[in-house]
Amino acid sequence: MGTTYRHEQILSETAAALSLKDNLQGMCHLRWRGEPLPSQEAVAEIINTCRALIFPGFFGESGVNRYNVSYRTGVLVERLYQQLTEQVAAGLCFVQEKSKMLDMPRIDAEAEQIAAEFISRLPELRRILGTDVLATYKGDPAAMSQEEVIYCYPAIRAIVNYRVAHELACMNVPVIPRMISEQAHRETGIDIHPAATIGESFTIDHGTGVVIGATAILGRNVKLYQGVTLGAKSFDTDSEGNPVKGIPRHPIIGNDVIIYSNASILGRISIGDGAVIGGNIWVTENVAPGEKLIQAKANNILRLKQQ
Amino acid sequence: MGTTYRHEQILSETAAALSLKDNLQGMCHLRWRGEPLPSQEAVAEIINTCRALIFPGFFGESGVNRYNVSYRTGVLVERLYQQLTEQVAAGLCFVQEKSKMLDMPRIDAEAEQIAAEFISRLPELRRILGTDVLATYKGDPAAMSQEEVIYCYPAIRAIVNYRVAHELACMNVPVIPRMISEQAHRETGIDIHPAATIGESFTIDHGTGVVIGATAILGRNVKLYQGVTLGAKSFDTDSEGNPVKGIPRHPIIGNDVIIYSNASILGRISIGDGAVIGGNIWVTENVAPGEKLIQAKANNILRLKQQ
Amino acid sequence: MGTTYRHEQILSETAAALSLKDNLQGMCHLRWRGEPLPSQEAVAEIINTCRALIFPGFFGESGVNRYNVSYRTGVLVERLYQQLTEQVAAGLCFVQEKSKMLDMPRIDAEAEQIAAEFISRLPELRRILGTDVLATYKGDPAAMSQEEVIYCYPAIRAIVNYRVAHELACMNVPVIPRMISEQAHRETGIDIHPAATIGESFTIDHGTGVVIGATAILGRNVKLYQGVTLGAKSFDTDSEGNPVKGIPRHPIIGNDVIIYSNASILGRISIGDGAVIGGNIWVTENVAPGEKLIQAKANNILRLKQQ
Amino acid sequence: MGTTYRHEQILSETAAALSLKDNLQGMCHLRWRGEPLPSQEAVAEIINTCRALIFPGFFGESGVNRYNVSYRTGVLVERLYQQLTEQVAAGLCFVQEKSKMLDMPRIDAEAEQIAAEFISRLPELRRILGTDVLATYKGDPAAMSQEEVIYCYPAIRAIVNYRVAHELACMNVPVIPRMISEQAHRETGIDIHPAATIGESFTIDHGTGVVIGATAILGRNVKLYQGVTLGAKSFDTDSEGNPVKGIPRHPIIGNDVIIYSNASILGRISIGDGAVIGGNIWVTENVAPGEKLIQAKANNILRLKQQ
Amino acid sequence: MGTTYRHEQILSETAAALSLKDNLQGMCHLRWRGEPLPSQEAVAEIINTCRALIFPGFFGESGVNRYNVSYRTGVLVERLYQQLTEQVAAGLCFVQEKSKMLDMPRIDAEAEQIAAEFISRLPELRRILGTDVLATYKGDPAAMSQEEVIYCYPAIRAIVNYRVAHELACMNVPVIPRMISEQAHRETGIDIHPAATIGESFTIDHGTGVVIGATAILGRNVKLYQGVTLGAKSFDTDSEGNPVKGIPRHPIIGNDVIIYSNASILGRISIGDGAVIGGNIWVTENVAPGEKLIQAKANNILRLKQQ
Amino acid sequence: MGTTYRHEQILSETAAALSLKDNLQGMCHLRWRGEPLPSQEAVAEIINTCRALIFPGFFGESGVNRYNVSYRTGVLVERLYQQLTEQVAAGLCFVQEKSKMLDMPRIDAEAEQIAAEFISRLPELRRILGTDVLATYKGDPAAMSQEEVIYCYPAIRAIVNYRVAHELACMNVPVIPRMISEQAHRETGIDIHPAATIGESFTIDHGTGVVIGATAILGRNVKLYQGVTLGAKSFDTDSEGNPVKGIPRHPIIGNDVIIYSNASILGRISIGDGAVIGGNIWVTENVAPGEKLIQAKANNILRLKQQ
Repeated sequence: MGTTYRHEQILSETAAALSLKDNLQGMCHLRWRGEPLPSQEAVAEIINTCRALIFPGFFGESGVNRYNVSYRTGVLVERLYQQLTEQVAAGLCFVQEKSKMLDMPRIDAEAEQIAAEFISRLPELRRILGTDVLATYKGDPAAMSQEEVIYCYPAIRAIVNYRVAHELACMNVPVIPRMISEQAHRETGIDIHPAATIGESFTIDHGTGVVIGATAILGRNVKLYQGVTLGAKSFDTDSEGNPVKGIPRHPIIGNDVIIYSNASILGRISIGDGAVIGGNIWVTENVAPGEKLIQAKANNILRLKQQ
Repeated sequence: MGTTYRHEQILSETAAALSLKDNLQGMCHLRWRGEPLPSQEAVAEIINTCRALIFPGFFGESGVNRYNVSYRTGVLVERLYQQLTEQVAAGLCFVQEKSKMLDMPRIDAEAEQIAAEFISRLPELRRILGTDVLATYKGDPAAMSQEEVIYCYPAIRAIVNYRVAHELACMNVPVIPRMISEQAHRETGIDIHPAATIGESFTIDHGTGVVIGATAILGRNVKLYQGVTLGAKSFDTDSEGNPVKGIPRHPIIGNDVIIYSNASILGRISIGDGAVIGGNIWVTENVAPGEKLIQAKANNILRLKQQ
Repeated sequence: MGTTYRHEQILSETAAALSLKDNLQGMCHLRWRGEPLPSQEAVAEIINTCRALIFPGFFGESGVNRYNVSYRTGVLVERLYQQLTEQVAAGLCFVQEKSKMLDMPRIDAEAEQIAAEFISRLPELRRILGTDVLATYKGDPAAMSQEEVIYCYPAIRAIVNYRVAHELACMNVPVIPRMISEQAHRETGIDIHPAATIGESFTIDHGTGVVIGATAILGRNVKLYQGVTLGAKSFDTDSEGNPVKGIPRHPIIGNDVIIYSNASILGRISIGDGAVIGGNIWVTENVAPGEKLIQAKANNILRLKQQ
Repeated sequence: MGTTYRHEQILSETAAALSLKDNLQGMCHLRWRGEPLPSQEAVAEIINTCRALIFPGFFGESGVNRYNVSYRTGVLVERLYQQLTEQVAAGLCFVQEKSKMLDMPRIDAEAEQIAAEFISRLPELRRILGTDVLATYKGDPAAMSQEEVIYCYPAIRAIVNYRVAHELACMNVPVIPRMISEQAHRETGIDIHPAATIGESFTIDHGTGVVIGATAILGRNVKLYQGVTLGAKSFDTDSEGNPVKGIPRHPIIGNDVIIYSNASILGRISIGDGAVIGGNIWVTENVAPGEKLIQAKANNILRLKQQ
Repeated sequence: MGTTYRHEQILSETAAALSLKDNLQGMCHLRWRGEPLPSQEAVAEIINTCRALIFPGFFGESGVNRYNVSYRTGVLVERLYQQLTEQVAAGLCFVQEKSKMLDMPRIDAEAEQIAAEFISRLPELRRILGTDVLATYKGDPAAMSQEEVIYCYPAIRAIVNYRVAHELACMNVPVIPRMISEQAHRETGIDIHPAATIGESFTIDHGTGVVIGATAILGRNVKLYQGVTLGAKSFDTDSEGNPVKGIPRHPIIGNDVIIYSNASILGRISIGDGAVIGGNIWVTENVAPGEKLIQAKANNILRLKQQ
Repeated sequence: MGTTYRHEQILSETAAALSLKDNLQGMCHLRWRGEPLPSQEAVAEIINTCRALIFPGFFGESGVNRYNVSYRTGVLVERLYQQLTEQVAAGLCFVQEKSKMLDMPRIDAEAEQIAAEFISRLPELRRILGTDVLATYKGDPAAMSQEEVIYCYPAIRAIVNYRVAHELACMNVPVIPRMISEQAHRETGIDIHPAATIGESFTIDHGTGVVIGATAILGRNVKLYQGVTLGAKSFDTDSEGNPVKGIPRHPIIGNDVIIYSNASILGRISIGDGAVIGGNIWVTENVAPGEKLIQAKANNILRLKQQ
C-alpha cells in the first residue's frame, strides 16, 4: 500500500510539473477555444477521397458502372469540398499568431474559395496522373498492366499525394500540403516536398529513400530509382543563426533524365535533358545534356581474397 | 450566398467533367456488376492469419496452450481458406479483359483449388521460416532471443510476406502476391518481388531500402544489410517502347554471401558462394566465390581541414 | 462436391500437421494460462499518450487552454502509468524461461515501480526534446515554424520514440523499448536502437534509411541526413557461432557533427567534434575534430557521352 | 495447476458433447459452404438506407441541399439495391430444405428482381408515410412540429419499418420482413406483424407494448395508444398439434378508430368506423360504427380507506 | 444482361422521382450549408458523460480513486460543456424557419450560456438522484445494495435521463430533451416527457410501458410499477384541427403515492397524498388523500371450469 | 471573452463541487487500484458466445459444417471460459466491502471454478432450450419454422438469457446474472428475474412488458403473453424500513398454464395445472387446476353511443 501511495505522489508531482508554464513553453499548442487544428486522420481522408475521384473503381467503393459513376462523383466532389474546406481553414489558423483573436468567418470563406479552386483543377490533375501511370508502366518490365500500376505501385501513391499537395501549396495553403506529403513519405518512404515542381510522365522505381527538395525543378519524363536525393548542398543562415527561407538550393533536372539508385544530386546545379546519372554517386556540379555519369569502378573498388 | 452559389456551380461542373468518358479513359475500373476487386484490407487479413498460423501465440490471439492449439489451428486454417479463396478469385478477375463476361463459378473453383494447395504447403513454409529466424538471431549481437526476433524484427515480417507471396506467385495468382509484398514494403521499407527465388536461412539487417528484383536468385544463408539493391542494369523494349517481360535481368547470389549496406548489385551477374560485398558500392560484373569487394578508401575520400 | 470434400481433407490434415509438437518447435509462444504478452497496439497507445503529454494540444485531444491543461495532464499521467505498468509487466514475462511458473505479483510490483520512475523523468524528457525541436527548426530552411516541426516532421516522431525507449532500456525493461523503436522505424524509416546514447539538440533530415546501432554514442548537436548508417563492421561469435552480446562495436560521434546522406560510419571509431562527413561514403577509421571527408569526385566518377 | 488441468478437461469434454450430432439436432444451422445467412446488421443497414432515402437530411448524412439531393439519392438507391439483393437472397436460402443443393444464380436473379420492384415503390411509400407523419403531429398536443415527429417519435420509426417490411412480405420474401419488424419491436416496444394490413394516416402514441397480429386489417386514420393488443383469441391445431397457418384470426379495424392504452381486441371481430375503445379493456365481440366502449367504473373499482 | 439493364433503369427513374420537389415536400430537412443537425450519437454521448460525472466509477472509466477523481471530473466537465454546447446549438437551429439565414454566433453564445448553466446544476442533480437511488433500494426486496441499483436498474437510467432532460427543457432547449427521453424510452420502455415535474425519492419498478405525460406533476416519494400511464383523457383542437399546445391535461400526483402495474390515470385529476392505486384499473376522477383503489374482483372476473 | 472566462469559472467550480467527498457520498465506486468492475460490454459478449455455442450457425460465425463444428466449438468454449472467469471475478469483487483489501488470487480461483462448472452444464442447457424452441413454434400460427423461431423471436433471446443467468444465480454469482437479465429486458421488454424457477417448454408471445419476480416458480409448458406480471402483492420491511430479503412473495404456476396479455398474478398464490388466465385481469387468490378466469364483460364494459 505504501508503494501505491508513493507512486500516486510521483504521478501528482509529475502532472503538476508538466503543467508548469515554463516546462510547457514552446511545446504546447494553446489556443482560444474553438480554432480547429489540422487532423492527420482528416488529411488522410482527403487523400482517400482524391484517390477515389481520380481512379474510380480502384479506390473508394468498388463496382463503378456507367449508371452510377456520375452520382458517385457528385457525392465525392461534395465530400471533398467539405473535407478540404475544414482542413484548409485549420491550416490557415495554424500559422496565425497565438495571441491573436481569429476572424473565423473570413478564414472559412477563404478556405471555401481554395477548396472550390482545387476541385476545379481535378480533371487536369487526372490527365497528368494518367501520363505518370503510363510512364511507370513503360518503365518497369515487371509491371503486368496499367491497372496493376494504379492499384499496387507505391510510386503512384506518392505521386498522387505530391500532385495534390503541390496544387494546395501553389495556393499558399499552410501545413496541409506538408502533412499530405509526409503521409506519402510514411507509406512509401518517398519524400517529395510539395513546393517542388515536377513535369508530366514522372516515375519512381521502388522508391524507398527518395528525397526531392522544396526548390527542385524536374522536367518531363524523369525517372528516379530508390534512394535518389535531389538535395541542398548547404544553406545560408541569418544573423541569429536561423536558415534563410526561400533561396533556390536544389537541382534543376531536364527532360528525359534517368537517375539510378542512391545517387545524390546536390545544390542548385543543372542536369541537362537526356542525362543519365549512375547509382551511388554524389553529384554537385552541372551535367550536360545527354551526358552519362557512372561510378569509376577501376579506382573505386578493391577486390580482395578473403582470409 | 453568392459565393456559395458559385462554388456549387464549380462542384457541379467538375463532377460532370470527371464523369466524362474521355477524362475517365484508363483511370477507371469499370466492371459488370459483381466481380470482386482485390482488397488491401482483406490481403492484410490473409497475412495476419498466416502469421497467426505460423507463429501461434506470437501473432493472432495470445494464450496458446496444449489444449487449444489444435482447435485454434483448425479455425484459422478454415478462415485462411475462405480469405484466400475470395482474394485469389478477385485477383483472377483483375487481369481479365474488361469487356468479357466472366465465368465466376469456374474462377471460384480455381481459387478454391489454389487456396487448398497453398494451405497444404504451410507446414513446410513454417519449417523454412524457422531457418530464417535462426539465421537472423545468429546474425545480430543485439538480438536477445529467437522470440524477440519473431516478435519484433521487421526482417521477419518482410520475409514471411515474401515467402507467402512467392508460393502464390508460383501458382500464377495475379496481383495478390504483389499486394502482399507491397504491404511488407510499406511496413518495413523492404521491397522483395514475389517472383524472386530465395533459399533457406535468409536474413536482412535493419532492411530499409532493400530491393530484390523479380528474376533474382539467392542461395542459402544469404545476409543483406539496409539499402542493398539486387536490381537490373537495363532492359529491352519492344517496337512500341514497352519493356519486354520475363527476361532474366537480376543477379544470381550464391550461398553464404553477405552484402553490406547500400551496395547495388545490378544485372544478370553471379556473386559466388561465400563472397562479401562491402557497403556503398556499385557492382555490375561477376564476383568469384570467396571474393571480397570493398570501397577503395584511399582514392575515394578526400580529407579536408574545414575553414 | 467431390472437390469440396477433398479440400476439407487437405484443411484437416494441414491443421493436424501444424499442431504437431515438432513442427511447432521454437515457432510457438506457449505459456501457462494468463501471462500477458506485449501488445503492439498497447505500445502504440503508450507512445500516443507520451506525445500528448509532451506536446499538449498538438497530439491527443486538441483545445488545450489554461483552465484544462492541468486536468488533462493529470488524467494522461494516470493513463500512462496504467498502460506502462501493463506492458512493462508483459515485457518482463516475455524473457522468462518458458517452463517457469511466474511470480506475477512480484512482476507487477516491479512494473509499477518502473512506470512511476519513468513518469518522473517526463519533465526532463520534454526539456531535452525541446532542444531537438529547436535544432530541427534551425537546420531546415524549409521549416516554417517550430510548430510545424513538432506537428509534421518524421524526425521528431522518431526522436520522441527513441528518447522514450532509451529511458525504458536504461531501466532494463525487455522487449518494449525495441517495440517502440520498431514502431518509429515503420513510421519513419529511421531505425535507432534504444540502447544508443544520443545528446541534446539532435536532428535528422528526411531520415528514411537512417540506422543507429546499439552501442553508438552521439554528442550534442549532431545532425544526420537520410540513409546514414552508424553501424558495426563485424562482430565476434562464441564457440557455438552465436554472436557475443554487449561488446562496443558502433561509432562514437562528437558534438556538432554533420553526416550527409547515405554515408556509412562503421565500427568502434571516433568522429571528432565539429567533423563533417560527406554523402555516400564509407568510413571505418577515426576522423579528427573539425575534419571534413568528401567523395573524391575526380577519381570517382566517369563522365561519358551516351551513344 | 491441478485445478487448471481439471478445468481444461471439463472444457474438452463439454466441447465434445456440444459437437455431438444428437445434442446439435435442430439447434444448428448446417449448410453447404457458401449460402448466405440473413444478417441482423445488414438488415439494420437496409432500414437506415430506407430512412435516409425517405427523409433526406433527417437520417443518413445531414446537409442536404438542392445541389446534392439528386446525387445522394442516386447513390443511396444503388446501395439499397445491393443491400436488399443480398439479404433477400439470404432470406430465400433460409427457407430451403437443408439437404438441397441450391441454385444460387436463380435465387440471386429473383432477389434482384424483388429489390428493383421494392425500390420502384419507394416514392409511393414516402407519400403514405407523409400521411402518417401528419396524423401523428395532429394527434399529439406535445408535438412541436412535423420535423420533431419525423426525427424523434418512436411511432414513426416503427411505422417506417412496418411499411417497408409489409412491401417485402407482399412479395413473399421470407424471414427478412420479420427481422425488420423485430428490429422496430426492439427499438420501440411496438410489435407489428409485417403481414398485417394498415391504411394511411396511421399513428401510435408512446407505443410500448402495442401488438398487431399477422391477419389484422386496419382502415385509414386509426390511432392506437401504448399497450394495445390486436390479437388472436385462439387458434386451430392440426392432428399433430401444430398450429394451422394462415387462418384469419385477428380483428378488422375500420376507419377513424381510436383505441386507448392497454386495451385488448381479440379474434376475427370488426370494430366499426369511428369507434372508440377505452383503455384497459378486453374486447372479443364486434363493435358497431361510432360506438364507444369504456370500463364501467362503478362496478369495477373499490374505493377503500387505507388502514 | 437485359435484366440488369432494366433494373438500372428502375433505379434511375426512382432516384429521379425521389428527388422531385413535390415528393420531397415536408419529408426533407433542407438547410443552408452548415447548420448543425442534432445527432442521436452525440446526445447518447452527453448522457454517458452525465452518468460518468454523477456516478464516478460506475459509468465512464472505472478505477476512480482519491487521487484521480478531481482530474477526471475536470476533464469530464469540460467535455460535457463542449458536447452540450454543440447539441444545444443544433437544437436551437432545428426549430428555426427553414428559409431564414441563421445568426450562428448568437446561437452559439446562447448554447454556451445554457451549457454552463446546466453544468452548474449538476451537484444538486446528483443529490436528488441520490434520493431516487435510496428510494429504489428501499422499495425492492430483490435489490442487494444501492450499488446494484445504480449499476443495473433500468429505472435509474430512465430517471437520470429524465432529470437531465427536464433541466434542459426548463431552459427552453428545443428537441434535445425529447431525444434524451426517447433514448431512455428505447433502453427501458419508460417514457417520461421531459416537461413533466417529478419530486425527489422517485422510483419505478420494472418499468416497461410506463408513460408520464408532459403536464403531469408528481410529488415526493412516488412509486410506479410497470405499465402505469399518467396520461391525457382528451385534448382540444383549434379551428384547423391541430391540437392546442400547452394546456394542463395530465394528472397531479401527491406525495407518497404508489400506483400498481398497468393502471391508467387520465386527465387533469388529483391523486391525494398517500393514495394507493391498484393494478389494471382506469382512473379518470380525483382520488382523496390516503384512499386506496383496487379492481373489484367479485364483479370483475368470471371463474369457469374448462371443457 | 468575458463570457468564456465566466463559463470557465463555472466549470472549475462545478468540477470542484462534484469532487467533494460529501457530494460523492454513495454515488461513487471508489476502489483500491485494480479490482475489476463488471462490464456491460463483456457481459453482452458472454451472451453472444453462449448463443453461438447453443445455436451454431445461427449466431456467431455462419457457415458451420461437419468439418469445422468441433474446432469452432473448442475455440468458443475456451473463449467463454475466459470471458466468464473475468466477469464472475468482477461480480465477486462488486459485493465486497469497499474498505477491504481483496484476496484476488482466491477470487480468481473461485471464478474459474464457477466458469468451468457453468460450461459443463451447457449441453443440458441446450437440450432444455430445444424444448422452449419447440413450444414456441407449436404455440404460434405465424411461425414458419423452428429456424425462424431461433433466429428472430425475442422470446427465445429472453429465455436464453434467463436460463444462462439462472445457472449463474444458482451458483451464487453476484450482479452478473442481473446484468444478463437486464440486457434481455432492454432488448425484448421481457423482465425475468434470474432467481425465478422455470420449467421446460416455456414460451412467451410478443413479450413486451412481461415481468417474472425473483421467487416465482413456473412448471412445464407454461405460456405467457405480452404484459403479464407474475409479481409480489406487498413485502415486509424491517425496523429501518428496508425490505426483508428472500421471503417467497411471487406466484407458483403449475404445468400447462396459459396466461393472456396484461394479466397480473400477484403474491404467493398457486395457479393450478392446466389453468387459463384471461387478459387484463388482476389475480391475487389461488386458482384451481383446470380453472379458467376471464374478465366479466357484462359488468365491466359500458357501451355508449358517441355524441
